[in-house]
Amino acid sequence: MQTQWLSSLKTEDPQAGYELAIKMARMGVKYTQPKDEVRQKLRPVYEQDANSLIASSQVIAINFQTVAMANNYWS
Amino acid sequence: MQTQWLSSLKTEDPQAGYELAIKMARMGVKYTQPKDEVRQKLRPVYEQDANSLIASSQVIAINFQTVAMANNYWS
Amino acid sequence: MQTQWLSSLKTEDPQAGYELAIKMARMGVKYTQPKDEVRQKLRPVYEQDANSLIASSQVIAINFQTVAMANNYWS
Amino acid sequence: MQTQWLSSLKTEDPQAGYELAIKMARMGVKYTQPKDEVRQKLRPVYEQDANSLIASSQVIAINFQTVAMANNYWS
Amino acid sequence: MQTQWLSSLKTEDPQAGYELAIKMARMGVKYTQPKDEVRQKLRPVYEQDANSLIASSQVIAINFQTVAMANNYWS
Amino acid sequence: MQTQWLSSLKTEDPQAGYELAIKMARMGVKYTQPKDEVRQKLRPVYEQDANSLIASSQVIAINFQTVAMANNYWS
Repeated sequence: MQTQWLSSLKTEDPQAGYELAIKMARMGVKYTQPKDEVRQKLRPVYEQDANSLIASSQVIAINFQTVAMANNYWS
Repeated sequence: MQTQWLSSLKTEDPQAGYELAIKMARMGVKYTQPKDEVRQKLRPVYEQDANSLIASSQVIAINFQTVAMANNYWS
Repeated sequence: MQTQWLSSLKTEDPQAGYELAIKMARMGVKYTQPKDEVRQKLRPVYEQDANSLIASSQVIAINFQTVAMANNYWS
Repeated sequence: MQTQWLSSLKTEDPQAGYELAIKMARMGVKYTQPKDEVRQKLRPVYEQDANSLIASSQVIAINFQTVAMANNYWS
Repeated sequence: MQTQWLSSLKTEDPQAGYELAIKMARMGVKYTQPKDEVRQKLRPVYEQDANSLIASSQVIAINFQTVAMANNYWS
Repeated sequence: MQTQWLSSLKTEDPQAGYELAIKMARMGVKYTQPKDEVRQKLRPVYEQDANSLIASSQVIAINFQTVAMANNYWS
C-alpha cells in the first residue's frame, strides 16, 4: 500500500504532464520492487545501459499518452 | 479457471486505477504460470533485474491506459 | 486455417474479456507455430522465465485494450 | 514495391480481422527482408523460440487493434 | 535537420498507408543514426535476425495505427 | 528539474510533429540519465546497434501517436 501519489491526471501544461508520466513509470517499478535499497543498487546499472534508458523512455511515452488524453492535449 | 477478480474497471480515483492496472499485469502472469511455487521462485530474480522492473512498469502502463479510459480519466 | 474461434469481441463482463484477451494472445502464438508438439515443448521453458511471463502479460494487456473498447468498457 | 495486398481493412468478422492482422505482421517482416530464401532460413529459428513467438503475437495484437477499430469492432 | 519527407499523413489506400508507416519507421532509425555508411553496415545484421525483423514489423504496426487513424481507416 | 522544453504539442505539420516526438523520446532518456557525459559515452554504443536503433524508432512512434492526435492529424 502506497501513500497518496496520484490524485489526478490533470496537469498545467504538457511538460508537467510529461513529468507526471515519468513519476508513473517510476511508481510502476516501485510497486514491483518496494525496497528502496534494492532499487538504489540497481540504479547505476540501468542508468549506464543504453537499452535500459531507451526502454525507460518507452514506458514514459506510454504513460504520457494517457496523461495527454486526460488533459485533452492541453488544447 | 480463476475465481472472480475483475468485475469492473471502474475505480474511485486514478491511484486506485493504477493499482488495478498492477493487479491486471500480475494476473496476466498468473494465468500463464498458475503455479504459486514457481512464481514465488521467479520473484527474487526479476525483482532484482532492472530491465524486468522496467518491463513490468510497461505492462502496468498499458493496462492503466485501459482503466483510465474506462473511468473517463476520472474527470 | 483455423476452425472458428473468434466470432465476437463481446463478453459478459471484464473478466471474461480478459480471458478472451488471453485466448487471443495464445492464438497469435498458435498461428505462428501451428505444431502442438513444438508448443508443448516450449511451454516449460517460458513458463519458468520471468521475462517471458512479463512479455506474455503485455500481449494480453494489448489484446485486452481492444476487447475492452469493443465492450465499451462494460459501462 | 509489393503487389497489391492491402486494399481494405474491412473484414467479415473478428476472426478474419485477426487473420488480416497476422498478414500485416508478416508483411512488415517481408518488406524489411524481401528475400524469400532468407526468411525461409530464419523460420525454423524463431518458430522454436518461445520469446520470438510471444513477440510475434504482440505484433499481431497491435495490428489487430487497428483492424478492429476500422471495423467498428464488428458491432 | 532532414529535408521535407512527411508533409501529410493522408494516403490513397491502406497499402500506401502501410508503406508510409514503413518510411516513418526507417526515418526513426535515420534520425537516430544519420550516417548512411553505418546504417548500411548494420543492415546485413538485422536483416538476418528474426527478432530484429519482428521488432521492425512492430514499429511499422505502431506507425500504421497513426496513419490509419489519420485516414479514418480509408472508410 | 528541467528548463521549459515542452510548452505545447501543436506543430505546424506532420514532420515537425515527428521531430517533436524525437525530442520527447530523447528527453525520456535525459530525465532518466541526466548526466551529459554518461549519455555521450553511451551514444556510440547504441548508434551502432541495430536493435537499439529499432527500439529508438519505436519510442518515437509511440510519442508520435500522441503528437499526431494532439494536432488532429494535421487535417
